[in-house]
Amino acid sequence: MRAEMAEQPAVLDRLLARRAGVERALRPLREPRPAGVVLVARGSSDNAAVYGRYLLEQALGVPVGLAAPSLYTRYGGRPDLRGHVAVAVSQSGRTPEIVDVSTAMRELGARTVAITNDGGSPLAAATDVVVELAAGAERAVPATKTVTATMLAFVLVAAALGTPGWSASDAARIPEDVARTLGAADPVRAVAAALPGKRSVAFLGRGFSYAAALESALKLKETTGLVAEGYSTADFLHGPVRIAAGDVAACSCCLAGPAAADVAAAMREAVDRGAVPVDLGVRTGPWPGAGLDVTVPEPLAALPLVVRGQQLAWAAAAAMGVDPDRPAGLSKVTETH
Amino acid sequence: MRAEMAEQPAVLDRLLARRAGVERALRPLREPRPAGVVLVARGSSDNAAVYGRYLLEQALGVPVGLAAPSLYTRYGGRPDLRGHVAVAVSQSGRTPEIVDVSTAMRELGARTVAITNDGGSPLAAATDVVVELAAGAERAVPATKTVTATMLAFVLVAAALGTPGWSASDAARIPEDVARTLGAADPVRAVAAALPGKRSVAFLGRGFSYAAALESALKLKETTGLVAEGYSTADFLHGPVRIAAGDVAACSCCLAGPAAADVAAAMREAVDRGAVPVDLGVRTGPWPGAGLDVTVPEPLAALPLVVRGQQLAWAAAAAMGVDPDRPAGLSKVTETH
Repeated sequence: MRAEMAEQPAVLDRLLARRAGVERALRPLREPRPAGVVLVARGSSDNAAVYGRYLLEQALGVPVGLAAPSLYTRYGGRPDLRGHVAVAVSQSGRTPEIVDVSTAMRELGARTVAITNDGGSPLAAATDVVVELAAGAERAVPATKTVTATMLAFVLVAAALGTPGWSASDAARIPEDVARTLGAADPVRAVAAALPGKRSVAFLGRGFSYAAALESALKLKETTGLVAEGYSTADFLHGPVRIAAGDVAACSCCLAGPAAADVAAAMREAVDRGAVPVDLGVRTGPWPGAGLDVTVPEPLAALPLVVRGQQLAWAAAAAMGVDPDRPAGLSKVTETH
Repeated sequence: MRAEMAEQPAVLDRLLARRAGVERALRPLREPRPAGVVLVARGSSDNAAVYGRYLLEQALGVPVGLAAPSLYTRYGGRPDLRGHVAVAVSQSGRTPEIVDVSTAMRELGARTVAITNDGGSPLAAATDVVVELAAGAERAVPATKTVTATMLAFVLVAAALGTPGWSASDAARIPEDVARTLGAADPVRAVAAALPGKRSVAFLGRGFSYAAALESALKLKETTGLVAEGYSTADFLHGPVRIAAGDVAACSCCLAGPAAADVAAAMREAVDRGAVPVDLGVRTGPWPGAGLDVTVPEPLAALPLVVRGQQLAWAAAAAMGVDPDRPAGLSKVTETH
């Protein structure tokens, strides 16, 4: 896992170098403008898709949503997807339900895109346009380099299909921001030290940091078996804040931007109820924090923030003496239908 | 909370009696057929909206998705919603972000519907069609009767706008199924007895039972402060199953139907890793279970299943000696923006 985390700047650089090819492949999907976009994914890819949902809705100016796969695979749902673009995400390209749903979406009229690390996979074969991550084999069960590569793929897809709020030169700085984040891992140890023994860890994000909260919670679960949940801060305040207590950690996932004040406010609520606060990204208070030193605009800063979550999961596993690469009983391809 | 739970059959009966009026009010939204439907809600209403998402996509045959409110309220997002229907859900009709997003959606071209318990609320004033729950004042902080009423409102909206997989006479039996569930509360106590002291409770559902898993987890958090999370079984198997251990309870939310085998399989995985199993609805194995005795088709059986989750939250709070009506520091209207 640690070695694959370290590969991320190079993986992202290689994917950025293929930007023109991705734009060319996606150009036929620009006209007519999609009526909407539907995304389908599971696990870490689903968290990357949540990120893609924000990017695409902002860049395309049309509704973007996440599909409910069971409607297709279990209930025979056949919605009219003419005029829509469907994006299916699977690192392996072999999760049966993702392949089946994507295949159905094409039959239902959607123009389909696959984001996958395997251009020869069944998913790639079943879609109109393939954005291949080319991240190299990922052996650790907790996905890292394929997650940030998938997020960057969504950055490229958003720019190819719409008008994003960042420039190509902004995106070109992502690998160096990720490299700087990887190089400044020490402060994460103090954050990780707060987690072992906690009943739960609530990761709090909003807007472009929400996907990082979801992904950081999943990564911590996978590597350590600790209980963790990612929340939008608004959802957290609508009830779940009730769990905050001295044996619960509140871990902010904050980016500098219009939602930063919401994350800080949710942290104050959690602290008022006795939760132990820590900051994964931009600092929200006088407690242990990793900090985030980035040059890219907020939407793109979600990638280094996700790297912070990987560092946290790895450091927590190390502190607990468990092997993050081989979580008890998890396998790399999950055969859900 | 217990008194409001007991009102549910009467509340649902009253709402069903207004079915013709709801259909009449929604008729103008049938033509032209919506290109898609966007839902916006928070908290328990958001869980009811997840249920509505399945119902509406199946009945209308168009993509249905949940809005990300921060894109509107924090990032200035203005997607093109012409041709879409937007449904905003708020028990109070006064959560600022729901009112603001719904108002924006109407300006952006969507035909808008409010589902609210207050026909005189700002939300009702800001939408084209209002489906009023008329559930009476809800005083307990954990919402119960307004949640099942909102779910029934989605049943009526799905029937009014599309072709559902159930008949009006099926829907007419919901109140008696809910009454029968309320009358058979005893077996829930054995399920509740397994929860106090657990590090976390994982509620597992799929398809039409997924929203019940989310809502049951939220209700347990609110009433007891226990950590709980609702999962789609497919998401659970993509990593989170790693948390399963002897100090974690796995609580199935199972309905008889095409997804039942998936819920049972996820329970077996959790049990294999040592989690303590219990069944909230239809039985999945030889462990404590509440059971669910219903006459309605699967999609509608989600309402009595949600009632089972309310009973569980109430019984767990009673077993722990905490007051479910006044969770420490939560208030009835949450002022998120």
